Amino acid sequence: MADINVSLQSRPSKGEPVAPGRPAGVGDGESLVDLIELFFFAYRNFVSDPDEILQGIGFGRAHHRVLHFVYRHPGMRVTDLLDILRITKQSLGRVLRELVDQGFIDSRAGASDRRQRLLHLTPKGEALAQEFVAIQSRRIRRALDECGADSRDQGRRFLVAMIDPEDRGAVEKLIARADQAAESRAGKSAPAKGGPAKDAGTRNAPSTRPAG
Amino acid sequence: MADINVSLQSRPSKGEPVAPGRPAGVGDGESLVDLIELFFFAYRNFVSDPDEILQGIGFGRAHHRVLHFVYRHPGMRVTDLLDILRITKQSLGRVLRELVDQGFIDSRAGASDRRQRLLHLTPKGEALAQEFVAIQSRRIRRALDECGADSRDQGRRFLVAMIDPEDRGAVEKLIARADQAAESRAGKSAPAKGGPAKDAGTRNAPSTRPAG
Repeated sequence: MADINVSLQSRPSKGEPVAPGRPAGVGDGESLVDLIELFFFAYRNFVSDPDEILQGIGFGRAHHRVLHFVYRHPGMRVTDLLDILRITKQSLGRVLRELVDQGFIDSRAGASDRRQRLLHLTPKGEALAQEFVAIQSRRIRRALDECGADSRDQGRRFLVAMIDPEDRGAVEKLIARADQAAESRAGKSAPAKGGPAKDAGTRNAPSTRPAG
Repeated sequence: MADINVSLQSRPSKGEPVAPGRPAGVGDGESLVDLIELFFFAYRNFVSDPDEILQGIGFGRAHHRVLHFVYRHPGMRVTDLLDILRITKQSLGRVLRELVDQGFIDSRAGASDRRQRLLHLTPKGEALAQEFVAIQSRRIRRALDECGADSRDQGRRFLVAMIDPEDRGAVEKLIARADQAAESRAGKSAPAKGGPAKDAGTRNAPSTRPAG
């Protein structure tokens, strides 16, 4: 983590002025290259938080992402996961196999369609997914605390605005639905109209099949 | 891009309340899982912007990242790039070779150390890198416009706060140094103390060698 820091601080300063926030003025319209790069560095640090744990069990970031979304959407299908992660079927297949083999994910045949595999976390998988959420929440919490009042709403608004407008509604619904499933699992909410709380996993799993 | 949107909108609503911004209450302290996921989706869209162009020339996102940082730091060394991207030497080697073979990057022996390869973009590489900056700047500009006044400073503050505190100074210096090099290349700035503008490439290349 300290590579860049150490190396750049060790470089003799030649009196270059540091001008954060200034656009580079390149290309089509005003360049926001500083924000492009800050987004890259922020995300690089953010996804590296669970690296130490992942390396200890021979996993990588793709395993983390799969674990996370299955944690949030118990009973989700492989095709749903492909839609969210936008990786190849081959890559996902390999990662899933490893997660199943090592007892983090349970892949069951669907009740209505036996050929359809539905994904659930094992208790071991759930514990790990929760740990990752806690680790990444700490980074965000610290960032929001530094940014002061309203920073949560502002940060949320900025991230939503960075998402393709045509994807936003679906993303927000996906998050809300997973939150609801989490509450049901935690026994916090009363049984909803859709059925008893124990059905929440299946009820809340995202369906990604197009209408046509 | 429209996968999730189409699929989720086509799913019959079962009257689940949509509660954006509500934490799921999982794990250590308050969970910020909604922001974790928004960050994932925002970054997923952000890095996919140049995908169409990249696919057209048989490249992937790693090629984009290499092209970008060499564009911003002309004359940078392979080791500098490894520090920034945090990928394996093997992965970078393959990507670099393809970029050199197809005439986007020029790899020259260093003047002081002939064994050290210094990376520069060819005019073709520079045109492509500029196009990517323009594309990604458009997404950020649109997001900032939606978020209203002060959103640039707020977005910047949030992204900086998401970076490891010990990396922040180095990242901001790296960005400022590249901005300065860009201005020198564009002939906008008067020659600085450190030397004439034409030396900017080498002068501004990040050095990542530790002090000891």
